[in-house]
Amino acid sequence: MPDMRFVYNDLGREFGRWFDWIIGAAEIYDYGRYPVKGMGVWMPYGFRLRRYVIELLREVLDSRGHEEILLPLLIPDFILAKESEHIRGFEGQVYWVTRGGFEELDVKLALRPTSETPLSYMESFWIKSYKQLPKKYYQIVSMFRYETKATRPMLRVREVTMFKEAHTVHEDFDDSERQVLEAIEAYKEFFDKLGIPYVISKRPEWDKFAGAIYTIAFDTLMPDGKALQIGTVHNLGQNFTKVFEVRIQRRDQSIDYAWQTSYGVSERVIASLISVHGDSKGLRILYKIAPIQVVIIPIPAGSSKEKEAVIKEAHALRERLLKEGIRVHVDDDPDRTPGEKYNIWEMKGVPIRLEIGPKELREGTVTVFRRDKKVRVRVKIEELADFIKRLGKEIDEELKKQAWEKFKSKVKMFSNVEDAKKFFEQDVGIVEIPWCGKEECASEVAEALGADALGTPLDKDVDVSGMKCPTCGAPAVTLMRYAKKY
Amino acid sequence: MPDMRFVYNDLGREFGRWFDWIIGAAEIYDYGRYPVKGMGVWMPYGFRLRRYVIELLREVLDSRGHEEILLPLLIPDFILAKESEHIRGFEGQVYWVTRGGFEELDVKLALRPTSETPLSYMESFWIKSYKQLPKKYYQIVSMFRYETKATRPMLRVREVTMFKEAHTVHEDFDDSERQVLEAIEAYKEFFDKLGIPYVISKRPEWDKFAGAIYTIAFDTLMPDGKALQIGTVHNLGQNFTKVFEVRIQRRDQSIDYAWQTSYGVSERVIASLISVHGDSKGLRILYKIAPIQVVIIPIPAGSSKEKEAVIKEAHALRERLLKEGIRVHVDDDPDRTPGEKYNIWEMKGVPIRLEIGPKELREGTVTVFRRDKKVRVRVKIEELADFIKRLGKEIDEELKKQAWEKFKSKVKMFSNVEDAKKFFEQDVGIVEIPWCGKEECASEVAEALGADALGTPLDKDVDVSGMKCPTCGAPAVTLMRYAKKY
Repeated sequence: MPDMRFVYNDLGREFGRWFDWIIGAAEIYDYGRYPVKGMGVWMPYGFRLRRYVIELLREVLDSRGHEEILLPLLIPDFILAKESEHIRGFEGQVYWVTRGGFEELDVKLALRPTSETPLSYMESFWIKSYKQLPKKYYQIVSMFRYETKATRPMLRVREVTMFKEAHTVHEDFDDSERQVLEAIEAYKEFFDKLGIPYVISKRPEWDKFAGAIYTIAFDTLMPDGKALQIGTVHNLGQNFTKVFEVRIQRRDQSIDYAWQTSYGVSERVIASLISVHGDSKGLRILYKIAPIQVVIIPIPAGSSKEKEAVIKEAHALRERLLKEGIRVHVDDDPDRTPGEKYNIWEMKGVPIRLEIGPKELREGTVTVFRRDKKVRVRVKIEELADFIKRLGKEIDEELKKQAWEKFKSKVKMFSNVEDAKKFFEQDVGIVEIPWCGKEECASEVAEALGADALGTPLDKDVDVSGMKCPTCGAPAVTLMRYAKKY
Repeated sequence: MPDMRFVYNDLGREFGRWFDWIIGAAEIYDYGRYPVKGMGVWMPYGFRLRRYVIELLREVLDSRGHEEILLPLLIPDFILAKESEHIRGFEGQVYWVTRGGFEELDVKLALRPTSETPLSYMESFWIKSYKQLPKKYYQIVSMFRYETKATRPMLRVREVTMFKEAHTVHEDFDDSERQVLEAIEAYKEFFDKLGIPYVISKRPEWDKFAGAIYTIAFDTLMPDGKALQIGTVHNLGQNFTKVFEVRIQRRDQSIDYAWQTSYGVSERVIASLISVHGDSKGLRILYKIAPIQVVIIPIPAGSSKEKEAVIKEAHALRERLLKEGIRVHVDDDPDRTPGEKYNIWEMKGVPIRLEIGPKELREGTVTVFRRDKKVRVRVKIEELADFIKRLGKEIDEELKKQAWEKFKSKVKMFSNVEDAKKFFEQDVGIVEIPWCGKEECASEVAEALGADALGTPLDKDVDVSGMKCPTCGAPAVTLMRYAKKY
């Protein structure tokens, strides 16, 4: 195991180094060695974590009537370019396939940067009547952006390998608005299950998705105080259905263009899981999604017969827990000491460790160690499975609680820019400042703070009566959130 | 539902039309409308079928110690070209990304045609010692081939969206040979679970995978008598580890290049499932992997109160079966007659249908219809869940039996080319003909038959004592299989 010669601390000044270290050490994601910039390899342990997160994501969507599909990766240029705002927003960062075998292609093919255009094209064949609506599709795919900014593993990559994009179709504007709310509820449930804290903001007009009528975003905070966008929801209006001619018969027999929304999350969710729950020893993975929920470390001592008995009991325990549907692993590597194993599995974030030696064997007990609080307790063998299941839930609640507490302490309201600036100098958080509604005022504040405007709060009641825009002095109409963004 | 004005028959002369019809009508795969040749859209029902097939595939691999990973899609040209045989085999059919945003890329990037090269490159960092071996990786990804032959939905496409490629590393040749056998066993289990019949052949030297020392293939038969390659297993020797310098310390402390195998299956598995089990009414899906295992059709009659009671009971039944882990759907669409619903769900291949009307309600029974044999039986409500689970297994066995019987009748041995030719004129099967081992003799037979040489049998004892090569008259050393290939 590589040395970690630095400490992950509350202010997170070492966060970047910590993150690079842990994704490698825990065998999550191999980054920087693959010979294409901004692209990495998901390793077995990381991939299993992904699998469980994706399972959760599918549950959240399937239970709300979403249907999974799969569109081709390649989009012909004339399809991608059909909606003018959309192509303006994306053309600077699209990868193009121009050759097949030894031939130049007649039509350039884009690697999907997102799928509004090809799906709307197909919907023009599929959807004819309000009776088919609402229709909710999604896919989980690789998505490509030729990023010009500095790339960062999982956080800003050129191949986003876990892009979940949902696309819905509606008979009128009202139903698309209802869908936006449903999407927000779905993402809240998803992030809540993962214990990832967030604010929900309406992105400013000048920062909305290219082709949307508005964009709503979920942002969380990394330990270094920078905000990370982890989910977005767009109302697309009729922008795409008009250019792709997705026409439906409405209830009153009239023909109209359908309405659409789209919403997405990516592997930034995994990056958030790692970052918001981790500590100086490494990962702390939620029980619910842990690739290994319980690791058993036999601690052989005494005569060789006694040693054998301990190893045997460890495996018997494994069998018993497997039958209870618990994902369990025995580390009986003879070349490592128990202490070394403790370090490795704590670093890998396994939520529960069982230690079993001759004493436990004699007493019919097991020592249970919980990774989140680093405390031990003795449990009787016959109560173990139930104890573990209860403890798993408790650990998930505890991690969620800790993450939200830390997060909330970093979101603060200020009536003036100076105090907000001082807050930012500590390298932390999201600030909320009264705003008059004018772009230039928000831009001025953002520049003074060295931050970006995240948008206006949707997740709390905003009362700005009597408050003024610190820039122009006009009465505030709402709050604007600012943060340094990833 | 579109009319099916033709009949799917045993000889399968209409197979092409039937296949195109069913993948559209059953909402499996939308092909031919997406504006890029050779690429289609997986629709919700087809995608769910895929999900269950992939689950099965993961079980088969995970239980044998394979670890799932995910490599980038894009491979730099200098990596893809490193093994000379390999690039010669693939360069004619690789898609190239040459532009990002408004810039020409310095290095051309290939869309993965297969991943031996980038993975071997990464293994040179990961694998250092025999202690880490054997190592078994796999990924399930999109793979691209700029096919010059005519494309066919799922059977020959330019984006293969369900490419499962496994890649293994070994300390010596013997262990790589053991792995080849393990891979064959794994695929046998997989195809057996899906009731897909196959022959296993060693591909002739001139038809092996580019970069392998030899290739073993699983072939099944489509209803039109053409052979479809559904799985391949390659022993790669040290061909890739030498050029990518994957060096390991061996048991005796010496340093050597590692040995590798690779093996793959694709969505041709889904195409096979559809084709080998289907009939003139449409799909017959195995219970194990059916997106909907049981469909409930309420048959309301009598007073409106009685009608209501039937609908209510249908939903109560659904709840009960759901709790038993059965994937069940109620079709209570008031706009369709029960007869229309029967046709739709038979076409979609749902293995078990429950019909419930006032009579069943009074008697506390349900009418159970099995799709495979199209027979009905009455079952008491309280015995229903167990009955369904038993019946599900029975259906899967029956479909498997039928498929194998049909398949076996189409694989025949002939000692001369003329009889084999007559057999082929009926449009069916695989023929086995004594062979002396010379390429030119096999080529001559293949040409005379208008077929391809599939390879030599690995799945049966071959006794060719006294037999002669029909071309050169020399003593036969084995059999060669021939078929018209997809």
